[in-house]
Amino acid sequence: MASDRTYTAALLIIGDEILSGRTQDANLPYLAQWLNARGIQMVEARVVPDDRDEIVHAVNTLRGKVTYLFTTGGIGPTHDDITAACIADAFGVDLPINRQAFARLEAHYGADNFTAARQRMARIPEGGELIDNPVSVAPGFRVENVYTLAGVPKIMQSMLDHLDGRIEGGRTVHSKALTLHVPESRLAGDIGALQDRHPDVGVGSYPFFHQGEAGVQVVIRSPDEAALEAAMDDLLHWVDDKALPKGAVETLA
Amino acid sequence: MASDRTYTAALLIIGDEILSGRTQDANLPYLAQWLNARGIQMVEARVVPDDRDEIVHAVNTLRGKVTYLFTTGGIGPTHDDITAACIADAFGVDLPINRQAFARLEAHYGADNFTAARQRMARIPEGGELIDNPVSVAPGFRVENVYTLAGVPKIMQSMLDHLDGRIEGGRTVHSKALTLHVPESRLAGDIGALQDRHPDVGVGSYPFFHQGEAGVQVVIRSPDEAALEAAMDDLLHWVDDKALPKGAVETLA
Repeated sequence: MASDRTYTAALLIIGDEILSGRTQDANLPYLAQWLNARGIQMVEARVVPDDRDEIVHAVNTLRGKVTYLFTTGGIGPTHDDITAACIADAFGVDLPINRQAFARLEAHYGADNFTAARQRMARIPEGGELIDNPVSVAPGFRVENVYTLAGVPKIMQSMLDHLDGRIEGGRTVHSKALTLHVPESRLAGDIGALQDRHPDVGVGSYPFFHQGEAGVQVVIRSPDEAALEAAMDDLLHWVDDKALPKGAVETLA
Repeated sequence: MASDRTYTAALLIIGDEILSGRTQDANLPYLAQWLNARGIQMVEARVVPDDRDEIVHAVNTLRGKVTYLFTTGGIGPTHDDITAACIADAFGVDLPINRQAFARLEAHYGADNFTAARQRMARIPEGGELIDNPVSVAPGFRVENVYTLAGVPKIMQSMLDHLDGRIEGGRTVHSKALTLHVPESRLAGDIGALQDRHPDVGVGSYPFFHQGEAGVQVVIRSPDEAALEAAMDDLLHWVDDKALPKGAVETLA
C-alpha cells in the first residue's frame, strides 16, 4: 500500500545541445507524468552544460534535496559524454569497467568491433546498479538515490520501463481540468477564492491564446479524489452561474 | 562593434504546470536561439514551482552567476502568479503599483472592468523598467540584470521583440552540423580526436534513432568562422575517406 509520506524528485538535464536550443528536451514532461502516476512529485529541474564542475555541483545539491534524482544525457561513447565520471566524482567513488556492462556491450558489438570508445560505456561508478537499455544496450545506472538515464527519449523511456515497480512512491495525485473561453484576468479573483475555500487541493490557472481567442485552463490537483470532485463541482457551479463558455471536464494524466 | 567579452545568460522557468508535465516548456529553445544570434550563451536553466522561497533563492543564485537572467511565467492575474513579488523580495525592494503599467492596463480593460485581480498585474518591483507586451498588455519588467517575461510563448516572444537592440551581446557563435547514418559509437574516438585537433571550436555529437536506424549529428560551433570551416573540412575529409553515409552540411540557427 502506498504510504502517506511525500516522495519528491528532481531532474538534471545534462547537455550543451539543450542550452544552445539545438535540441528541445522531451524527457521532462514524460518523466514528470511517469512519476505522477507513481505518487512522486517532481519539484525541480535543471539544465547544465557538459561541464564537470557544473554537473557535480548540481548532482550534489539536488540529491540531498529530493527522494530521487534523475539525470538524462551524457552517457554515450564520445568525448563530451562525461556524466558517469561526474556521478563517480559526486559520490567520491571510482569509475571502473563494470563486468556485466562490458559483457553486454561486447556481445552486442562483437569482440572485433568493441572499440575503446564503446568500452567507455562500460564504466559505471563503483557500487552502481545497472539499468537495462533494450534499445541500444549501453546501460544506465543507479547510485544510491541517483538514477542516470540516457538522453535520447526512446532509450530514456525504455530505461523507465525497466524501473517500473522498482521505485517506491506515495499517493497518486489526481488532476482534472476545465477549459474556459474567457480571458484569465476575468476570473482571477474568483479562482483565488476557490483555492481559499478548498485548501486541500491545488488550483492552477493557465492562460492560452489560440487563433486570437484568449482562454484559460483551470487545473485542480489532489491525492484526495473526493476533495478534488468537491472543488470541481464548486468551480462548475460558479461557471454556470456566470454563464461562462466552457469545455468538458478533462482528467489529466 | 561586438566585444570579445563573454556574455552569458540563465533562464528560470517558473510554474507547477511545467514540473507536473502538464505543459511542455517551449521558451527555452526559443530564448536560447534568440540569445545565440546576439552573441549571448545560455549556460544554465532551472525549473522551479510556484513557491516563494524556491523562486527567490533561484533568482538570487542565478543573477549573480550570469550576465543576464531571464524568468518566464507567473506574472498573470491569479493567486499563483507570484513572480513579481518574488523578484521584489530577491532585490529587497517594494512592489508598488506602477503608474505607467496601471494606465496601460486600465486603458485596455476599461475603468469598469479593471478588477482588483487585473490591477495586480500593475505591481512592478521598485525601480523596474517595463517590457512591452503587445499581445495582452500586462507588461514584463527588468530589474538590474533580471528580465521577467510572460510564460505564454506568444507573449514571451513579443516581449523579446521589444528587447531587440536593448541587450548587449558579444561575438555570435556559428554552428554547422553534419548528419551521419552510422551509430555514434562507431566514430566516437575519431570525434574526440577531431576535437583535439581543433581546440578553438566546440565539437558535439548527438545520437538519434529514427525508424530503426541509429545515426548521429555532429555539430561544430565557434565564433570564428574560419576555424569552424577548417574543422568541418577535416570532418568531411575523414568521413569521405571512410566512405560513411552522410547528409548535407547544415547551418544551424
